[in-house]
Amino acid sequence: MDDGKCTWVKILTLSPPSLSNNRADSERLSDSLKNLLKTEFLEIGLNILREISTSLRKWNYRVKCVLFKDGPKWILTGILAPDEIEKSFGIAVDLGTTRIAIKVCGLESGNDLYESSFDNPQIKVGADVLTRIHFAESEDGLHDVNKLIIDGINSMICQSCRLLEIKSDNVYIVSVAGNTAMVHFFLKLNPQWISREPYIPVTNRPGTFRAIELGINVNPSAVIFIFPNIGSYFGGDLIAGILYSGINRSKNIAMLVDVGTNAEVVLGNSEWLIGCAGAAGPALESGAAKMGMYAGPGVIDRVWIDSLSGKIDIHTIDGERPVGICGSGLIDLVAHLFLSGMIDIRGQFVKERCGNMLERIGGIDRIILVPVGVSAIGKEITVSQTDLDSLIRSKAAMYAILRTITGTVGLVPEDLDTFYVAGTFGSFIDAKSAISIGMLLDLPITSYKSLGNSSLGGASLILKSERFLDEVDNIRDSITYLELNVNQEFMNNFSGAKFLPHTDSRLFPSVKWSDK
Amino acid sequence: MDDGKCTWVKILTLSPPSLSNNRADSERLSDSLKNLLKTEFLEIGLNILREISTSLRKWNYRVKCVLFKDGPKWILTGILAPDEIEKSFGIAVDLGTTRIAIKVCGLESGNDLYESSFDNPQIKVGADVLTRIHFAESEDGLHDVNKLIIDGINSMICQSCRLLEIKSDNVYIVSVAGNTAMVHFFLKLNPQWISREPYIPVTNRPGTFRAIELGINVNPSAVIFIFPNIGSYFGGDLIAGILYSGINRSKNIAMLVDVGTNAEVVLGNSEWLIGCAGAAGPALESGAAKMGMYAGPGVIDRVWIDSLSGKIDIHTIDGERPVGICGSGLIDLVAHLFLSGMIDIRGQFVKERCGNMLERIGGIDRIILVPVGVSAIGKEITVSQTDLDSLIRSKAAMYAILRTITGTVGLVPEDLDTFYVAGTFGSFIDAKSAISIGMLLDLPITSYKSLGNSSLGGASLILKSERFLDEVDNIRDSITYLELNVNQEFMNNFSGAKFLPHTDSRLFPSVKWSDK
Repeated sequence: MDDGKCTWVKILTLSPPSLSNNRADSERLSDSLKNLLKTEFLEIGLNILREISTSLRKWNYRVKCVLFKDGPKWILTGILAPDEIEKSFGIAVDLGTTRIAIKVCGLESGNDLYESSFDNPQIKVGADVLTRIHFAESEDGLHDVNKLIIDGINSMICQSCRLLEIKSDNVYIVSVAGNTAMVHFFLKLNPQWISREPYIPVTNRPGTFRAIELGINVNPSAVIFIFPNIGSYFGGDLIAGILYSGINRSKNIAMLVDVGTNAEVVLGNSEWLIGCAGAAGPALESGAAKMGMYAGPGVIDRVWIDSLSGKIDIHTIDGERPVGICGSGLIDLVAHLFLSGMIDIRGQFVKERCGNMLERIGGIDRIILVPVGVSAIGKEITVSQTDLDSLIRSKAAMYAILRTITGTVGLVPEDLDTFYVAGTFGSFIDAKSAISIGMLLDLPITSYKSLGNSSLGGASLILKSERFLDEVDNIRDSITYLELNVNQEFMNNFSGAKFLPHTDSRLFPSVKWSDK
Repeated sequence: MDDGKCTWVKILTLSPPSLSNNRADSERLSDSLKNLLKTEFLEIGLNILREISTSLRKWNYRVKCVLFKDGPKWILTGILAPDEIEKSFGIAVDLGTTRIAIKVCGLESGNDLYESSFDNPQIKVGADVLTRIHFAESEDGLHDVNKLIIDGINSMICQSCRLLEIKSDNVYIVSVAGNTAMVHFFLKLNPQWISREPYIPVTNRPGTFRAIELGINVNPSAVIFIFPNIGSYFGGDLIAGILYSGINRSKNIAMLVDVGTNAEVVLGNSEWLIGCAGAAGPALESGAAKMGMYAGPGVIDRVWIDSLSGKIDIHTIDGERPVGICGSGLIDLVAHLFLSGMIDIRGQFVKERCGNMLERIGGIDRIILVPVGVSAIGKEITVSQTDLDSLIRSKAAMYAILRTITGTVGLVPEDLDTFYVAGTFGSFIDAKSAISIGMLLDLPITSYKSLGNSSLGGASLILKSERFLDEVDNIRDSITYLELNVNQEFMNNFSGAKFLPHTDSRLFPSVKWSDK
């Protein structure tokens, strides 16, 4: 996704001053830089002005410059000795609602040096964005919710710099992608109108700030770039994802799906982009099953059922004794239950096929996935009819989103060249299982590509070249947002998708199930 | 000098948001502003982003905006309720080496509300700029010399706001003019290379900063605009002076002289400008006479001699008993001594004409200006031959500067339409006396116009309209700097000017002295 060398760092040799060439030190440097960058506008911060005269003389008028761009204007964000190698760093941040991820890159080499993540400390005041927005409306609430995230990021930056043995003062660029609400919390902007009709953010184009303004503990003059968002429900994290996927750079039509709390979907190519977001996530991300949980040691992430014997095989993360099941495990399970005839096209357990794996408690059927003796939690791990119903609603919503957005631009699934699946969901999910239950489009498995954390990936591209920064503007300006809340087509698609794999089985020619 | 209404404050009415018009609050405002200002680039600071959503709703989407301009970019520096009258203020600052002057203006009305000045607290570490630069090179020296000026200005701002019963938080623009070294002290920039060959400032174009960056106690987002300078010895105070005089707006050729420690001279019109600076000042500003001092109560600022009786008449400031003499008094004295034949064309006392007003102490003649009984200092106030020699060197340098700059562009004095004299010097000096001793060009007295504090005047124009800001750029870009240090023509002019009024009396046709 990256074409190599970083372009933010430049070395310049200036002519030393004389009576006949007595330009001021900062103009001497900025004239050279403007010439090199072919720009009229260059901003030099006060911190640099305060050191430039001494440094230029010490370095014999050779200087390494760290730059960034803000609209028409270039920003000189740091100056370094010309002969110091790899002393300037950038940090990419993915402001996830649940996890915050950061990546440290060398600004000269463009190398990724370190990556880490931690639970969003705001979970303390609310697991989801709406609860946090509500909390932020209380006295000092916004201050607290901002402080949690800033402190968390600062502590991770501090830890990363210590591990890498670099000075945080040598971090000159920070690139931040997050959903609209998370960006509001990060900038301490009033989020309350995001969640109320007509859903108005304070800003969709936060642009750049200086580290000192936001209290981020890197070089005080460092530029903090914030990805723009399209609206309250289509955030900068997805724009970063598009950038990372490269959809916007290819002539072929591709689709990108990021499933978090919401499912966010983008379709397009280098000429056009359309995006939408809808509530499809909770059941998929975790939560649907009573035993549902986020990926972690002992969590069941893969399930197989032998369709002859009906025997269930599981895989747990790190091979630990099972503690529960996550979204990808659940999708596998439902796919295999369906393909082996243990649930029908409505997703109802078929008693005669399930046999003694099924039990009924409080009037609700549940299938025993892990018996008490094998489980690590002192009781059976089960998946109930309620869990199945919930998953089927989620998969129906997901499929309806994909169908609606494709149909809106007059495309059929076969027109898609690539289908990118982002996030943890994309890393864990088995595309074949997801197709089997009718959640994803019935495309060749090779069309599906997992992107990993595409928001973090996109944020780190910004650290490498100004051309990616220009692409962000292009993406933002060219994307059309499709509103699903009031969309009749979406409702129709949703109804048809509440069966396995679909009421119209011609949409899933590759799926062969046992009672067919 | 001002064409009325301030242009930095605009009132806008925005369409309120709806589902079909769901732009973010800041974009809603900035789109309107960009449209109004016909600009692509508008910066909205974090402070404003943090309050905009609440304020816009409270004010029903009507808003008063305080703006400023920085190159191609507009800056929104404050937002106010639409119906509050005269709640936004600007402050102009003249960073004089000796005195700091400030003026508070209403940004809406453009009215001047209050003006005051105080001794530059940096005098504590050095009376002149060179001593302060030297001091700034010591440990913590720059920090101290910066703190003195910032604290001084903050305390004056605080006092002014209290007197005017306004909030310092409602000050949104501060416009600062000073000489190059003073600007370095103000911004805490290393001044050490200003005073060493080849005399290189850190920057000639400081541009704009935010109040919080510089520690100025007004609205933290307020823009602090710093006048550019041309070089180490041609500062922003003179550019402000040019702006205030309006030389740059007139087709007629005019000259501007500002005498402080240096004499700074600008010649030109709306098509061209040439400037130079030279050491002519000390003797004129004060200092030449042993009794020489700055203007203040009891200081002799006017002198007359009846050429028949030889009787000396004096005027003191505030009519107090005399304590000493300032530059304008000394020029008057020398002019009258010369016109009445009490000194000759070389400036030597003519004993037979001075009579018993002359005394000789330690081999040096001195004239008794005020006898011991009248003086307020318990001894006579006298002016010695040494004082006269020193003044004559100063006036010769002054005249040589005027002649050289005029000659360089091929003009004769008669080509000048107006001769502006700025500063305290301009307010006190009697042009006729200055011509009589051959210090100023022999132009009709009506050509001479006193400007007062032109640096403060120019700085306050910036608070009134963006057109003056554009003019500052034009002045800076169009001015040619004439170096006098290595100028042979200047040396020749200097030699010829060391007589009263000049070796070539044809240059002073209006001056008739008694022994002619």
